[in-house]
Amino acid sequence: MPEALSRDTLAAWDGADPLAPFRARFALPPDVIYLDGNSLGALPKAAEQRASQVVQREWGGSLIRAWTAHDWIGLPLRVGGKIGRLIGGAPDSTVVADSTSVNLFKLLAAALVHSPDRRVILTEAGNFPTDLYVAQGAVELLQRGHELRAVDDPLAALDRDVAVLMLTHVNYRSGAMHDMAAITRAAHEVGALVLWDLSHSVGAVPLQLAADEVDLAVGCGYKYLNGGPGAPAFLYAAPRLQATLCSPLTGWLGHAEPFAFSSGFAPAKGIARFIVGTPPVLSLAVLEAGVDLMLDAPMPALREKSLRMTDLFIELMQRRCGQSGFALLTPDDPVRRGSQVSFAHPDGDAIMQALIERGVIGDFRAPDVLRFGIAPLYVRYVDVWDAVETLRDVMAREAWRDARFHQPRAVT
Amino acid sequence: MPEALSRDTLAAWDGADPLAPFRARFALPPDVIYLDGNSLGALPKAAEQRASQVVQREWGGSLIRAWTAHDWIGLPLRVGGKIGRLIGGAPDSTVVADSTSVNLFKLLAAALVHSPDRRVILTEAGNFPTDLYVAQGAVELLQRGHELRAVDDPLAALDRDVAVLMLTHVNYRSGAMHDMAAITRAAHEVGALVLWDLSHSVGAVPLQLAADEVDLAVGCGYKYLNGGPGAPAFLYAAPRLQATLCSPLTGWLGHAEPFAFSSGFAPAKGIARFIVGTPPVLSLAVLEAGVDLMLDAPMPALREKSLRMTDLFIELMQRRCGQSGFALLTPDDPVRRGSQVSFAHPDGDAIMQALIERGVIGDFRAPDVLRFGIAPLYVRYVDVWDAVETLRDVMAREAWRDARFHQPRAVT
Repeated sequence: MPEALSRDTLAAWDGADPLAPFRARFALPPDVIYLDGNSLGALPKAAEQRASQVVQREWGGSLIRAWTAHDWIGLPLRVGGKIGRLIGGAPDSTVVADSTSVNLFKLLAAALVHSPDRRVILTEAGNFPTDLYVAQGAVELLQRGHELRAVDDPLAALDRDVAVLMLTHVNYRSGAMHDMAAITRAAHEVGALVLWDLSHSVGAVPLQLAADEVDLAVGCGYKYLNGGPGAPAFLYAAPRLQATLCSPLTGWLGHAEPFAFSSGFAPAKGIARFIVGTPPVLSLAVLEAGVDLMLDAPMPALREKSLRMTDLFIELMQRRCGQSGFALLTPDDPVRRGSQVSFAHPDGDAIMQALIERGVIGDFRAPDVLRFGIAPLYVRYVDVWDAVETLRDVMAREAWRDARFHQPRAVT
Repeated sequence: MPEALSRDTLAAWDGADPLAPFRARFALPPDVIYLDGNSLGALPKAAEQRASQVVQREWGGSLIRAWTAHDWIGLPLRVGGKIGRLIGGAPDSTVVADSTSVNLFKLLAAALVHSPDRRVILTEAGNFPTDLYVAQGAVELLQRGHELRAVDDPLAALDRDVAVLMLTHVNYRSGAMHDMAAITRAAHEVGALVLWDLSHSVGAVPLQLAADEVDLAVGCGYKYLNGGPGAPAFLYAAPRLQATLCSPLTGWLGHAEPFAFSSGFAPAKGIARFIVGTPPVLSLAVLEAGVDLMLDAPMPALREKSLRMTDLFIELMQRRCGQSGFALLTPDDPVRRGSQVSFAHPDGDAIMQALIERGVIGDFRAPDVLRFGIAPLYVRYVDVWDAVETLRDVMAREAWRDARFHQPRAVT
């Protein structure tokens, strides 16, 4: 990192940034620096148009005929196929359906049934809560002596009792990234399946699920894929597993012949068996616009910019806020870093509120974590500069001490 | 039904119809008579506006702040509460989440765990396939000796082995409606829980779940609620059961304190425990527009018009298509009728295609069922006249014999 960093230097970096034109494809509010794309991605202009098109032209104009005329029925596999390219998955192995939590349940339950002699779901203690909760629920429901083992070092805990190793690739709090290839290999060595949660990875870091021989994965549509609030999630199963894994949620659209209306369930061939109910057309179409945009972006350039920006963020924080009590949670090693930077601070909640009031939007995760997400398609180098300068000002003025930022809140 | 029925008579009925003004609140395509609102409801103009508002103003303008600024986080319970009024449910007992199939799984699994000494899910053989499939999947997953018993006369099959009686209130093929109060009482007499699928009832017929002491229910947002293609579904649990029923799908938003990010699942108090993942904001907001519209319509007038129209449809079919081989499937007794009319015909598929080509949109269900849905908020009496006259013409000209209508199709 050069010594002579200035806002002008960074403006020059933006001028030379090959990804800079992507920013114009988003509808961003003025006067906001948006560093929360790891929680809710920004609005692609194409998504605006797509929402209007699917509501007015397709639903309003074609009504029920749109299921075939506009191929609504094909959306789960079509959008799934596109996400499959983003995650480097095997072809025809990704489908969009339900929420991340529901997809986790489907795959976890299927994996436990698939390995009846193994009793352990192994995971990380710091995994995202819903992943832990869903696993607890599956264990509780099955009542077959399974155990959710949540440890600090899952690699060290791998053994032949493990049915499935369930990990989130990039941690939601720290932004630390696991070595997917090495961990998958280690799990396979003890005969365990691996289930990766890609919620904080897809659209943010390079992924090659097929090359890494990943068994199972789920992920979220509303973060770096910019699919809209509560966008449907996706699910991946390696081709070698698709014929043997059975979804526990056997809805009509996972049937081999949904429109035969037969009374017995027979799973569809391939990944379509993991579809459950009628697809959420409107949300799926909007998600597709976000995915299409992401497919236009070259991942090597995106990763390079992401790392350059997180490096920059860490460096500027040291230079400008180094005395303010922020502890870096994100790995210093770029190989182990996703596309966010996190700091712990005892007054993190109030500091983040003060920052948001000044138009710099990150978020806070209890008990003390400030998160700053870097979405390289719409965040500029100067935004990082301005964000850190604003934070410096909040700290210098002790603006976060304001009583307004210390009220109890239901939602943070 | 008067002898001197004519199109003019029916136009006069439309002129005097107190619900007639509702039609202008829908964006209907010209030159179409839409009798498939039992499959996909029409587009409310308010839903168009709401979709644009939630995408542009809320997502685009407020980004992550919209979760609180526009109360996105409150959508599942808020829209659930409104649907609760439409179904006559107890307060604070309805939530919008996931799909009908996923909600069925949650409630079925919870009910089976709730009654560990009972082994039977009792249902009707003619129930909608997804209901049967989901029950099969739950039995298969639990592996605790449960049995799905699908019979023609579930009332006669009620006994003390029955954990849960699962029925669809209005049958998707015939439009026949069960007596909810009497059946619920009979199930309670043997100590069974009752789970009603209201997909073809809500917004179509009067419901009083609290008065009928219904235990559990699910239903669909995209039919008579006009919530849009693949709209999220709802779930109801009587207050007396909420504290003891545990959802098997334990996602973070069903947690008592989702934003505490604790590692152990603790269910929310009340119906919120049945929420799983992040709510599908866009679809939920659009569904709310449909539900709001429905809440403006007085149910007694809606039911009266619905029955008058289904009576009319049946009468006109007898008069005008009586020799064409249509067999009425819908009960003649209005008390047992939902808001659709169905006929069996051996050439039903081709006949329906010929009819749709002429702008009269009903649908076909294998093997031989033509369905005509009556949504009294936007269907007029003259539409029924014109639909039957068009069908008469299709039959008289044998238009359905055209080879185009006899191609194999993946989706019907």
